[in-house]
Amino acid sequence: MPEREELCTIAWERETGSIVYIDQTLLPGRCEQMRCTTVEDLARAIRRLEVRGAPALGIAGAMGVALAAVRSTEADLGRFLADVGRAADLLRSTRPTAVNLAWGIDRVARKVAMAASVVEAKALAVAEANAVAEEDELTCRRLGAFGEELFPTACTALTHCNAGALACRCWGTALGVIRSAVAAGKDVRVIACETRPLNQGSRLTCWELARDGIDVTLIPDSSAAYLMRKGAIDLVIVGADRITKDAVFNKIGTYMHAVAARHHGIPFYVAAPLSTFDLARTESEITVEERDRAELAYCGDRQLAPDSVNVLNYAFDATPLDLVDAIITEIGVLRPPYSESFRLVGNPAHRRGQGA
Amino acid sequence: MPEREELCTIAWERETGSIVYIDQTLLPGRCEQMRCTTVEDLARAIRRLEVRGAPALGIAGAMGVALAAVRSTEADLGRFLADVGRAADLLRSTRPTAVNLAWGIDRVARKVAMAASVVEAKALAVAEANAVAEEDELTCRRLGAFGEELFPTACTALTHCNAGALACRCWGTALGVIRSAVAAGKDVRVIACETRPLNQGSRLTCWELARDGIDVTLIPDSSAAYLMRKGAIDLVIVGADRITKDAVFNKIGTYMHAVAARHHGIPFYVAAPLSTFDLARTESEITVEERDRAELAYCGDRQLAPDSVNVLNYAFDATPLDLVDAIITEIGVLRPPYSESFRLVGNPAHRRGQGA
Repeated sequence: MPEREELCTIAWERETGSIVYIDQTLLPGRCEQMRCTTVEDLARAIRRLEVRGAPALGIAGAMGVALAAVRSTEADLGRFLADVGRAADLLRSTRPTAVNLAWGIDRVARKVAMAASVVEAKALAVAEANAVAEEDELTCRRLGAFGEELFPTACTALTHCNAGALACRCWGTALGVIRSAVAAGKDVRVIACETRPLNQGSRLTCWELARDGIDVTLIPDSSAAYLMRKGAIDLVIVGADRITKDAVFNKIGTYMHAVAARHHGIPFYVAAPLSTFDLARTESEITVEERDRAELAYCGDRQLAPDSVNVLNYAFDATPLDLVDAIITEIGVLRPPYSESFRLVGNPAHRRGQGA
Repeated sequence: MPEREELCTIAWERETGSIVYIDQTLLPGRCEQMRCTTVEDLARAIRRLEVRGAPALGIAGAMGVALAAVRSTEADLGRFLADVGRAADLLRSTRPTAVNLAWGIDRVARKVAMAASVVEAKALAVAEANAVAEEDELTCRRLGAFGEELFPTACTALTHCNAGALACRCWGTALGVIRSAVAAGKDVRVIACETRPLNQGSRLTCWELARDGIDVTLIPDSSAAYLMRKGAIDLVIVGADRITKDAVFNKIGTYMHAVAARHHGIPFYVAAPLSTFDLARTESEITVEERDRAELAYCGDRQLAPDSVNVLNYAFDATPLDLVDAIITEIGVLRPPYSESFRLVGNPAHRRGQGA
């Protein structure tokens, strides 16, 4: 299906000991590769959403710790570990809602902590960060293969935000399932919600699907329910930033689509790797990131709202699991009752130890 | 309550025989009055949404016919009427969904057709157009008084698009009810949805409510359902562009809010003058305007989506009446079953004859 070279959203550049990534704020106008040589650069890139998407944030977190390790000039293991710890804390603070970020940071930090020397720690950190990235690709392919079985031979799928190649190392989660369905010969059309206020749907999902020759139509977020009413949508598939024992956190607007899908009897699917699961917590324990008013009050230099009005700009919302018909993971499709199917997911801490 | 001079969105300027209006595409940056001296100018202003909002379009249609009458140089009554007829057809073609536009055009055209001379026709046209505008203000005040009784003493109301002073001559329909509730001493906070793709919520509703000192918070359209889930919204109130015997046509996104309101047990109210009713028709007979792809694919000069992707840009959606808890009009609050309460509305053609 993809005729062009596959995207690689984020990677470790061994020669220079730095992170290269596609700056997603420049899309769809330009697809440009950037380089981070310091953890501060990376933290800024994450805050500015140059790197975004839950799985990609996991990789970024992992590579950020590797970057801190490689760049540390401390020869003393204790001081070296303090350097790495500060970097991990800085990275962790950039985005509070996506759990994958902390997951990636922790995975590499745990390896570093096991090292007997600074030299060994640096090598372990880079190896683990690369393992996280490579596993992400494998995870997306497996998840895609499980998920595409849920798709009819011909269908129109609604998606929100970007859970695509650009949100991962490549292939994608929700869009990975769509790619897998297309690769399996299914006739899939995609309706992409623009995803206000930062338009990841218009800028990223439309761009990467059009690049792959997949049929995609852009709509305003607010017209999804009306298209469901008109019978134009067969299923909804989205990614996730965190899955607690009772809810799916994902880009603001996801909950609205879940409510509308239920109202119209349309299946609502979440595609997410196990690194997104945080089953020790409940919805009420999670901080939903609030972003700057300017994202809504301005579009570039153009003022959209008076400076005197309040703005409430949640980056995410929470969809209770009773509105979710299936969660597609790399170990299979989880179905309600989730209290039972979540047992398959097991203890995330245990999983990390196995490097899975 | 309003400390500043009340807005007057559109008016007939007797001295110059022209229409003056606030160009709403310049808000919130600038509040500037423009003048139309030809029907072609007015048609362009309507298509560009410089003048918008169902009741204001009714006034614009009425004044447009008056403009054509006043500006016609034909001395022969037959040729004069042909001039006016062509102007009416041009204006009617500008926006297919809002019924008020055709209603305003027809009201003045009918008066013109009754005239015995060109001179009389011109005088009747201007008088009738001004009557439409004056009645609109009275209608909004009455509607506001009926509607505010539905508001609790303290509440947060969600609204979508702009059904405010800027959508009427002044005061507003949905925002008129909010103004009336505030004027009655109630503690009303407003959540304004930005209303993609043209941001009438951000640009117009936020601007006019902030101007009046009413507490308003801007949100992306997609977060309304999540705020309902969090218990932050007590009621929804919107305007309408056309009410058929089975559905309310209003700005795209309205249906989504109605579905979410029902899911959360929150009342969903529509505020609309009788000129919005089209009870001889059903939803399936109405053309929903589709607007240009550029409204979604660009923001000013900034490209948001690749040129190669399809865009589906419905300007309106239809909410079935079973999701509407009340329709607030200038003759009172209509409640389900609407098949019965619509009898109060009577025959619109008959109402027009009474100038009501």
